[in-house]
Amino acid sequence: MDLRLLLHQVQTGEVTTAEAERRLRLLPYEDIGFARLDHHRPLRKGFGEVIYAPGKTEAQLVASFRHFQDAGSNVLASRVSPAQAQAVQSQIAQTVYDLVSRTLCLCLHDIPQTGNVAVCTGGTADIPVAEEAAKVAEYFGCRVARYYDVGIAGIHRLFSSLEDIRQANAIAAVAGMEGALGSVIAGLVEVPVIAIPTSVGYGASFGGVSALLTALNACAEGLAVVNIDNGFGGGYLLAQINRLVEKRHAG
Amino acid sequence: MDLRLLLHQVQTGEVTTAEAERRLRLLPYEDIGFARLDHHRPLRKGFGEVIYAPGKTEAQLVASFRHFQDAGSNVLASRVSPAQAQAVQSQIAQTVYDLVSRTLCLCLHDIPQTGNVAVCTGGTADIPVAEEAAKVAEYFGCRVARYYDVGIAGIHRLFSSLEDIRQANAIAAVAGMEGALGSVIAGLVEVPVIAIPTSVGYGASFGGVSALLTALNACAEGLAVVNIDNGFGGGYLLAQINRLVEKRHAG
Amino acid sequence: MDLRLLLHQVQTGEVTTAEAERRLRLLPYEDIGFARLDHHRPLRKGFGEVIYAPGKTEAQLVASFRHFQDAGSNVLASRVSPAQAQAVQSQIAQTVYDLVSRTLCLCLHDIPQTGNVAVCTGGTADIPVAEEAAKVAEYFGCRVARYYDVGIAGIHRLFSSLEDIRQANAIAAVAGMEGALGSVIAGLVEVPVIAIPTSVGYGASFGGVSALLTALNACAEGLAVVNIDNGFGGGYLLAQINRLVEKRHAG
Amino acid sequence: MDLRLLLHQVQTGEVTTAEAERRLRLLPYEDIGFARLDHHRPLRKGFGEVIYAPGKTEAQLVASFRHFQDAGSNVLASRVSPAQAQAVQSQIAQTVYDLVSRTLCLCLHDIPQTGNVAVCTGGTADIPVAEEAAKVAEYFGCRVARYYDVGIAGIHRLFSSLEDIRQANAIAAVAGMEGALGSVIAGLVEVPVIAIPTSVGYGASFGGVSALLTALNACAEGLAVVNIDNGFGGGYLLAQINRLVEKRHAG
Amino acid sequence: MDLRLLLHQVQTGEVTTAEAERRLRLLPYEDIGFARLDHHRPLRKGFGEVIYAPGKTEAQLVASFRHFQDAGSNVLASRVSPAQAQAVQSQIAQTVYDLVSRTLCLCLHDIPQTGNVAVCTGGTADIPVAEEAAKVAEYFGCRVARYYDVGIAGIHRLFSSLEDIRQANAIAAVAGMEGALGSVIAGLVEVPVIAIPTSVGYGASFGGVSALLTALNACAEGLAVVNIDNGFGGGYLLAQINRLVEKRHAG
Amino acid sequence: MDLRLLLHQVQTGEVTTAEAERRLRLLPYEDIGFARLDHHRPLRKGFGEVIYAPGKTEAQLVASFRHFQDAGSNVLASRVSPAQAQAVQSQIAQTVYDLVSRTLCLCLHDIPQTGNVAVCTGGTADIPVAEEAAKVAEYFGCRVARYYDVGIAGIHRLFSSLEDIRQANAIAAVAGMEGALGSVIAGLVEVPVIAIPTSVGYGASFGGVSALLTALNACAEGLAVVNIDNGFGGGYLLAQINRLVEKRHAG
Amino acid sequence: MDLRLLLHQVQTGEVTTAEAERRLRLLPYEDIGFARLDHHRPLRKGFGEVIYAPGKTEAQLVASFRHFQDAGSNVLASRVSPAQAQAVQSQIAQTVYDLVSRTLCLCLHDIPQTGNVAVCTGGTADIPVAEEAAKVAEYFGCRVARYYDVGIAGIHRLFSSLEDIRQANAIAAVAGMEGALGSVIAGLVEVPVIAIPTSVGYGASFGGVSALLTALNACAEGLAVVNIDNGFGGGYLLAQINRLVEKRHAG
Amino acid sequence: MDLRLLLHQVQTGEVTTAEAERRLRLLPYEDIGFARLDHHRPLRKGFGEVIYAPGKTEAQLVASFRHFQDAGSNVLASRVSPAQAQAVQSQIAQTVYDLVSRTLCLCLHDIPQTGNVAVCTGGTADIPVAEEAAKVAEYFGCRVARYYDVGIAGIHRLFSSLEDIRQANAIAAVAGMEGALGSVIAGLVEVPVIAIPTSVGYGASFGGVSALLTALNACAEGLAVVNIDNGFGGGYLLAQINRLVEKRHAG
Repeated sequence: MDLRLLLHQVQTGEVTTAEAERRLRLLPYEDIGFARLDHHRPLRKGFGEVIYAPGKTEAQLVASFRHFQDAGSNVLASRVSPAQAQAVQSQIAQTVYDLVSRTLCLCLHDIPQTGNVAVCTGGTADIPVAEEAAKVAEYFGCRVARYYDVGIAGIHRLFSSLEDIRQANAIAAVAGMEGALGSVIAGLVEVPVIAIPTSVGYGASFGGVSALLTALNACAEGLAVVNIDNGFGGGYLLAQINRLVEKRHAG
Repeated sequence: MDLRLLLHQVQTGEVTTAEAERRLRLLPYEDIGFARLDHHRPLRKGFGEVIYAPGKTEAQLVASFRHFQDAGSNVLASRVSPAQAQAVQSQIAQTVYDLVSRTLCLCLHDIPQTGNVAVCTGGTADIPVAEEAAKVAEYFGCRVARYYDVGIAGIHRLFSSLEDIRQANAIAAVAGMEGALGSVIAGLVEVPVIAIPTSVGYGASFGGVSALLTALNACAEGLAVVNIDNGFGGGYLLAQINRLVEKRHAG
Repeated sequence: MDLRLLLHQVQTGEVTTAEAERRLRLLPYEDIGFARLDHHRPLRKGFGEVIYAPGKTEAQLVASFRHFQDAGSNVLASRVSPAQAQAVQSQIAQTVYDLVSRTLCLCLHDIPQTGNVAVCTGGTADIPVAEEAAKVAEYFGCRVARYYDVGIAGIHRLFSSLEDIRQANAIAAVAGMEGALGSVIAGLVEVPVIAIPTSVGYGASFGGVSALLTALNACAEGLAVVNIDNGFGGGYLLAQINRLVEKRHAG
Repeated sequence: MDLRLLLHQVQTGEVTTAEAERRLRLLPYEDIGFARLDHHRPLRKGFGEVIYAPGKTEAQLVASFRHFQDAGSNVLASRVSPAQAQAVQSQIAQTVYDLVSRTLCLCLHDIPQTGNVAVCTGGTADIPVAEEAAKVAEYFGCRVARYYDVGIAGIHRLFSSLEDIRQANAIAAVAGMEGALGSVIAGLVEVPVIAIPTSVGYGASFGGVSALLTALNACAEGLAVVNIDNGFGGGYLLAQINRLVEKRHAG
Repeated sequence: MDLRLLLHQVQTGEVTTAEAERRLRLLPYEDIGFARLDHHRPLRKGFGEVIYAPGKTEAQLVASFRHFQDAGSNVLASRVSPAQAQAVQSQIAQTVYDLVSRTLCLCLHDIPQTGNVAVCTGGTADIPVAEEAAKVAEYFGCRVARYYDVGIAGIHRLFSSLEDIRQANAIAAVAGMEGALGSVIAGLVEVPVIAIPTSVGYGASFGGVSALLTALNACAEGLAVVNIDNGFGGGYLLAQINRLVEKRHAG
Repeated sequence: MDLRLLLHQVQTGEVTTAEAERRLRLLPYEDIGFARLDHHRPLRKGFGEVIYAPGKTEAQLVASFRHFQDAGSNVLASRVSPAQAQAVQSQIAQTVYDLVSRTLCLCLHDIPQTGNVAVCTGGTADIPVAEEAAKVAEYFGCRVARYYDVGIAGIHRLFSSLEDIRQANAIAAVAGMEGALGSVIAGLVEVPVIAIPTSVGYGASFGGVSALLTALNACAEGLAVVNIDNGFGGGYLLAQINRLVEKRHAG
Repeated sequence: MDLRLLLHQVQTGEVTTAEAERRLRLLPYEDIGFARLDHHRPLRKGFGEVIYAPGKTEAQLVASFRHFQDAGSNVLASRVSPAQAQAVQSQIAQTVYDLVSRTLCLCLHDIPQTGNVAVCTGGTADIPVAEEAAKVAEYFGCRVARYYDVGIAGIHRLFSSLEDIRQANAIAAVAGMEGALGSVIAGLVEVPVIAIPTSVGYGASFGGVSALLTALNACAEGLAVVNIDNGFGGGYLLAQINRLVEKRHAG
Repeated sequence: MDLRLLLHQVQTGEVTTAEAERRLRLLPYEDIGFARLDHHRPLRKGFGEVIYAPGKTEAQLVASFRHFQDAGSNVLASRVSPAQAQAVQSQIAQTVYDLVSRTLCLCLHDIPQTGNVAVCTGGTADIPVAEEAAKVAEYFGCRVARYYDVGIAGIHRLFSSLEDIRQANAIAAVAGMEGALGSVIAGLVEVPVIAIPTSVGYGASFGGVSALLTALNACAEGLAVVNIDNGFGGGYLLAQINRLVEKRHAG
């Protein structure tokens, strides 16, 4: 450890204080900084690594997975195309691909799932985004309950599951078109609801903008929003809240 | 009557067919046209006239009302400012101003109200637009039921009135912010729902655009939309549908 | 029937009132709710079911049609791609595909067509959307009159059909580019006009936004709007209004 | 209690099961529904009521505060103009107005503050929105730490407070102009960050749209967004997360 | 001729004036109207017909051309894809396809070209749109001078042709990206300049919106604008102005 | 004249060719350039000068008018506020202010009006913009015919004036809201139509964007567009076309 | 100095290496960090401080100026309203307010101006933004040449000054409406051009968006853009480039 | 040389001054103009030519390269597709294609690289745009240091390279998604930073608009922006600034 060594050298007189001062002006952004930042990155035990696949070549993706395999770590990749998945799986047989959520997982160690988060969708076309959120939340240690196709065009479907949904520590509402699911749920529960607008729709849905604006302008309190189709971001937030609650509960 | 006279003159030989042909090429857009178009304008018995007040001087507005007063006809003006209303009322005492809906009415003859239309709002701030719709529908002969502040942030309020709302021939859903009221109602009723988005809100509501997009992208069938804050247009459509139903029913 | 059984059990003392109260708190959103909502869904006799095809796998679509075939019910699917249609037709020979409107229909029982609705288009490129509206209206029991290519670039074409168009209970105006057809028709008729903007055009038509804004800002009263290219929604509204008029007339 | 009474009447035979069935079809949306929904509204002990002031007349606002005063309840109103505040304060002396956050509070009972949430701003012009978030979070029982003017134009200011900020259960990042504060913080902490974009800026900030888009497109995970200038919504989410953590911790 | 006949029948007493009145109420929009409108359509001698190809099947397009061939008339089709062109040419050998402008012309009679219009482009990528404008202007009887690649990044190229450009009766300025060519030319000439923005560019050119806004906001007077990539519309306006000038000059 | 002098000096040997070459490299953009550009500026005999008033102080405006008064020239200022007008008129009594069009004119010499241009409006609220166009066209020597309130909500009003409108050399169609007037007229006439969208409207008219898009996407040929509310630009184009036609006709 | 002291204490054994390590993890972002960042802030000798006035109370603004006055430093405030300026000037007589650029300067020490930068505007209405850029550049030590009203509507005005403009180290092109000035200049010079779009214009200028897009899409190389009306930012960049050039030249 | 010859002919009397005057009115925009403009175009010694490949046929591209090869000049083409590159390389073997930056270079003479510019990216997906900027800067004689994947999601990566980055004469910050890299760097350095927003991202990144707005609204001074994905423009500006600094330094 550089910092520890340096201080030792100051203590023993091997390094002057002037020299130490000079090196410390830059050091924090390097070794100390890195070490320090390290423990608030999502690299911690039990949480595993994540890879964002778009823009990566198949070779780069294989290399990344090989790196984690060699290190004996779990890793999850999101937005993996079928071709990318096939390239990795042909090299690293332990990886598991989920076509719906487009996630590719190397799961060398079991991930214990605790707490309770809910993922709801307005329609069936929203399921791929919802599954990305669900898989990410599971990968980060959440027990996930799914409530799909409970949109407001047939609002009784939502109500029939409401008692269960209300048990969650956090809820994702995944919806395209008019995207009002998040508003309706937020009006009925006590916990934070994460709206994940989807690009499902046509015409004046403008690729998800309509659903995004609906969520931003919700009358109901307790609704926060992530980017259109951002299942990863939504699942991550569910996991953060779930961890906060369960950690304190457990601690 | 020009056309009748002209044909008589042709018949009697006072006017040649060539001369008649020449005049008839233009006539339709004048007298015939006018007469003909007359019976599909909103000028019919029991319907009364309407005036759009913005951009009119107080003198012009007084003159318009005087014209109808002299003719013994009802007339309704929309979007009338308090100053405009005062100017007219100081001259024509029979006019009645409604500050909430900003309508000014000269009602010389009673307007019988038949049928049943409903006007709902998401919140209390939507009431001015809703009242414009309601007053216009009443002026055009509708019996109007009002259901205000039944928005989706507390959806039980809507459900408690649902059986009554479902009796209407047509329903206006007036809502700003995320504007999902129309979608929810359209999923629960058999009749056409007219969404009237309002400019209520701030930030990413973009002056009513959010509510407008919500209505355009509704998953539920049976929802049509008018311009932001267009209470007049919404009330007019309610009246058209109500008249169609009641007229046939009565006929 | 659960509710009936429960009340019977309360009556006979099999179930205590406390237990019944507990179960009734949730019940409405389940069985009662479902039953209750059932009779305002578009599932009623003579109306048939509808399926929205986009995002469904061929297998899912075949299964849906098989379900209705087994139940002896009519069903209509909208936005069906040729490949989807072929997949269903190879399994269920009774289905009929219409390439222009992209509708696929299983019509086991004749649908009597009553009343009168009109579907107009500005140009020939708007016909696929118009046909979707027309097919949907016919499926829901309307007699449909078509007036295609009557746009305002040659407004005499519209006028030559005007007397017929004016007989309809409701009118759809399907137009892209500047999309002014709905405004012009609404200025000439007594009944509600549903503007269906289309994405026909290029450049500053912005995929139908220009036509959408034209309809929303119409000077003429009596014009309501649905989403861009939403032939289904427009046809549904025509059918709702037509049913209201004819039902009362018949009743 | 209607439901309890009805079941008793069924048990005793006063009411037939058929009549009970008929009444139960509507009941859930009324009394049961209301009772049921009641306990997930923000009306619970220690949480107090809230009033959204815009669009309310001074008389309506006084009446609302009088209602809570009579009931001996706390209540907080948001977005209260100085004129509105003066009108209420002249009638109800116990109310306290905060000019910066534009909140008006009737605080009859002390609100114990627990947990730890952080509210950060990019600049000084963002403080009014931040204060609204902070006051709301405090009203809902949070201990709030403020870190103002720590924006990325001088990022060392943020770093000097980072260890403290990292202790929070949830963090609000309030920023206008380019609005990158939330992204930077989310990259440095473990807990959820709520971005509250503000309308501070000019030109291509488009009234907060730039800051909103920045937050929606953050590279860093763990960032959720609310509407532009929505201090209330941001503070509410902080309080929800804080309550979840502390409640479980305490339980 | 219906109108002439009808008047004759009135004159002779074969038709009563009442019956004539009834029929004349509709007639204007049919036969008279049609006849009347006929002579202001672009169907006149020397002008030829035009066909808009997009959305037409190959069979429809062949049929249209066959119709004009049989009638012995010229006809021009715009926005014709190579596949469409090949389909027509394989059937009607006299048609000539221009790949750059995507026009397909059946030119049975020579079109005399008079007057003088200019078509300028900012860059080489704008040439396809410019050629559409030029071919259309030529088809409608203009002598066309082309000035390509004279954009403002090297403004001396424009100046070296300025004296010639200034001789035109009307000028089209075809430019994408920042699209300032029209503004610069309009500041230097006496005649109307038609800006035709193109979709050439990337990023914040937004498919031609940047060039469109530039033209709409020109400081220089005498600049009018058509839709993005609307070579046809621009060429048509050049021809209208050229015809006005030359016709009066010749008359 | 510098250029003439310089050449003379070269001829006489007063200036060397090297020195002349150096000076000529810059000269064209100065004196020659200026002289040359001079004769295509709108400063020619009979055309008069124009001043754009916004952003000018009252003192600057008075000075500008004084300059033209001293020079014995006509001059027209556009977009002049009443306060600006009063400031000028109190100093220069000969100026005439028109409140509707907001033009202020110093007309020392009569302007003969020739030719024929038409200015049409959709509604009465469009008249200020139309009057600006008309006054500008008159100032530049056009005989102007006005056709106001002939919008498509009552299209018979347009038809009744159509024969007269068709006589114009060029036509301005001034309309807000859906702004379809230009499209309808362009479909009915042979001459260029200049659409001047206005900001009249509310909600989704977006300050004139709806009317602007309508004009850009017109199905009818022969329609060109200027900026929203740009009466000056529209009137200028009318005058350019009128001048082209009449000049050649007269020449 | 904390760091120096700490290292000394490690050397002498007063502080253990473990304790030093703990404290050093935070230190860099505090004292070292601050010291380090200090010397790249714009606070250096000869550059002076700047204050952004909007959102500051008059009292805050006075206090800020007092602070610099006490420290004997120059300071410049931008976007200062007349009321703000008056408040400061009534307290601190040495401050100088410039109404056009809205800058307020406390200039205790002369600022030597070196190098050469140019500020150009398209029209006279752009001058306030241009003057802000010029004053800021002067405050940061530039010699500034102004070229106002040289826009492309009369492009000869630009050419007559071109040789002088080309001498600058950097050029600001300040223009609203179509905003093409920057493109034209960048095509004619060797040095970087900073486009400062202004909100001058109306209608489809969209508050400066049109001018902004023009600059972003320039065909000419060597053009960079800042926010709409951002005279400060543009002047700052001119000064940065000027300093780079002159410093190296001088060094 | 025409100009020189002409002046000689005037001197000798071969050409009259009147004839010379006539020819000189046009000449400047031709030969003199061209010659004059020539020496401020990027064609100077050591700078080489550039070609913009999009929209060029393979034959045109080959011809362009052949032209420079024959002239013995360097030339760089940007945005060259692999197919275009292959076509050129099969003909002109000396050309070198770089797949990442999509540049194709004919480098017949070594380009000495001086000075120091930095190109930074937020993520790995931004590298193609960054490489275009870097290659262009190198082609124009810059020594380029690359700092990739130093975005604000892990801001310590940026800090660890900060001392080196601060040595540059100019810095490009290439970033998509929220695009805050430029703002952060500009807050930490003394030299101009050029933000190059990229279209990397999805949903509400709107093809790079989010990153573009972030850069335009930066709180930090010293940030200028180019179009989305405009690596060429960014690299060009780096080279302009670098040349200014080094030229003066060297001179």
